[in-house]
Amino acid sequence: MKIALDAMGGDFAPQAAVDGAVLAAEKLAGKAQIVLIGREEAVRPLLEAYGDAAASLEIIHASQIIEMGEHPAKAYQQKQDSSIAVGYRMLHAGEVEAFCSAGNTGAMLVGAMFSVKPVPGVIRPAIANFVPKLHGGYGIMLDAGANAECKPEMLEQFGELGSLYARYVLGIEDPKVGLMNMGEEEGKGTPLLQSAHQLLKVNPHIQFVGNIEGRDLFNDKADVIVCDGYTGNVILKLAESIYDLLDARNMHDPFFDKFNYESVGGSPILGINDNAIIGHGVSTPLAICNMLIQGYQMAHAGIADQIKDTFKS
Amino acid sequence: MKIALDAMGGDFAPQAAVDGAVLAAEKLAGKAQIVLIGREEAVRPLLEAYGDAAASLEIIHASQIIEMGEHPAKAYQQKQDSSIAVGYRMLHAGEVEAFCSAGNTGAMLVGAMFSVKPVPGVIRPAIANFVPKLHGGYGIMLDAGANAECKPEMLEQFGELGSLYARYVLGIEDPKVGLMNMGEEEGKGTPLLQSAHQLLKVNPHIQFVGNIEGRDLFNDKADVIVCDGYTGNVILKLAESIYDLLDARNMHDPFFDKFNYESVGGSPILGINDNAIIGHGVSTPLAICNMLIQGYQMAHAGIADQIKDTFKS
Repeated sequence: MKIALDAMGGDFAPQAAVDGAVLAAEKLAGKAQIVLIGREEAVRPLLEAYGDAAASLEIIHASQIIEMGEHPAKAYQQKQDSSIAVGYRMLHAGEVEAFCSAGNTGAMLVGAMFSVKPVPGVIRPAIANFVPKLHGGYGIMLDAGANAECKPEMLEQFGELGSLYARYVLGIEDPKVGLMNMGEEEGKGTPLLQSAHQLLKVNPHIQFVGNIEGRDLFNDKADVIVCDGYTGNVILKLAESIYDLLDARNMHDPFFDKFNYESVGGSPILGINDNAIIGHGVSTPLAICNMLIQGYQMAHAGIADQIKDTFKS
Repeated sequence: MKIALDAMGGDFAPQAAVDGAVLAAEKLAGKAQIVLIGREEAVRPLLEAYGDAAASLEIIHASQIIEMGEHPAKAYQQKQDSSIAVGYRMLHAGEVEAFCSAGNTGAMLVGAMFSVKPVPGVIRPAIANFVPKLHGGYGIMLDAGANAECKPEMLEQFGELGSLYARYVLGIEDPKVGLMNMGEEEGKGTPLLQSAHQLLKVNPHIQFVGNIEGRDLFNDKADVIVCDGYTGNVILKLAESIYDLLDARNMHDPFFDKFNYESVGGSPILGINDNAIIGHGVSTPLAICNMLIQGYQMAHAGIADQIKDTFKS
């Protein structure tokens, strides 16, 4: 199995990308091979500096780079030999089983939509984010920013997509789905939330536990947290800032340390035909390594196929 | 000046209410008198136990109680001699200059809308919440839950209401207003956020600094944070849970300790003709005391009149 990494993506690329890839190659030895996509002349010397430790890694040359500030759709279209476009082409062709990048988030979404494409039946793919849970492990929250505005049917599907990920990748047998709302009682919230509640309630593929509130994010009430992309993005960035504030005060604890984005490495795009993960722009080698391991876990679980099977019917 | 407290409101009423009122009476001695509204037979013995320390406190008898689980509008209408209805009647009549309650939040909003009423020109009043700031002091976020769904013009007015509170009560001379969004660039977010951005940008009464993100909640970018009531409610409850989680781990720090709701005591309803504050259901004596002090500060600053003057034109 091959897992691809955009070697040019992220603020500290290509050094952090290569360092993270070498770390991941060691951890995934015998299970998966790491493929680095990017400018060979920039990547090869960094890889060679690792000597034998980097022997298993492959480089695929891509002459262009989509920069962080570029317009996603325009850059993706114009830079067909960029590391992101090449990565998606290989993913779509089945040459790699997952593609990870800490580069331009918008371009990663464009590639997901126009290269590997949404699974038939999925209205809109979502970005999923991991939520540390007090009882150990992680839950999953979606959408975390792909869709600012949502329809009730999209929120219903997020519940299904998140449940599949929780079951097949996180290993939670019968994941509980909660709708992020502003009160527990049925009928609370906006018309969108009220309609989504009714759809989630009667969906036979998921275990819906009803509305949850901001205070329930980390507790045992729900493994899958459903919300629109605006709300999910605010929650995600707020939680990340909490970790930074605690870290700056040297306040550490096993639970709060899991707020650190490095510990999961990236956010999968769910509802597309292949496995793609978006990493944080500031990704460190540890974050890159964990993103690649997550890519392996998604491919190993065949999550994209599970989603295709579910939405086929 | 008289500040009224619902002596029957909150999970630990009337004991916590009386304890908090006596604390506040001491701190506000010479500035304001505390009026306790509730069942005299329940309140008087608790007050008498304090002896001379409670000499300045007044009791106004109200025979009924709106319980936490009751339907707000129905209960408010049917229980005209409840502590909440009596409190709003006194507030409206000018017998007290602020009314505070840790009781049924919905009933407090009903009273605000139907007894003291919105200020002419204000589309919908909002619940404001205090946000601890890294550079010291507090910012203000609104709406925190009164209006699940908002129109762009409502968000614009929240920016104005919050600016007035920040200026006249928090003493921030030229408060910065930020719109909670999922990206800093203009044009980000839902159609609601895009429209609100344009209205806030050209409003001459406020200093709009543009979009902010979840990670900016506690930093220096904005003193007034504008969002819809659903988003504000999720943020508020998430922030409260962070404090509880830190406290449970005995992780304390002057900044994070300000996340504790007790330190501000309550959330003012802004955009109504008089000063009303809603406290947390679990309010402790310290929270009650701080809510009463906030009621005094609002009345002292004449914030309701400032809002009326601004929206008159």
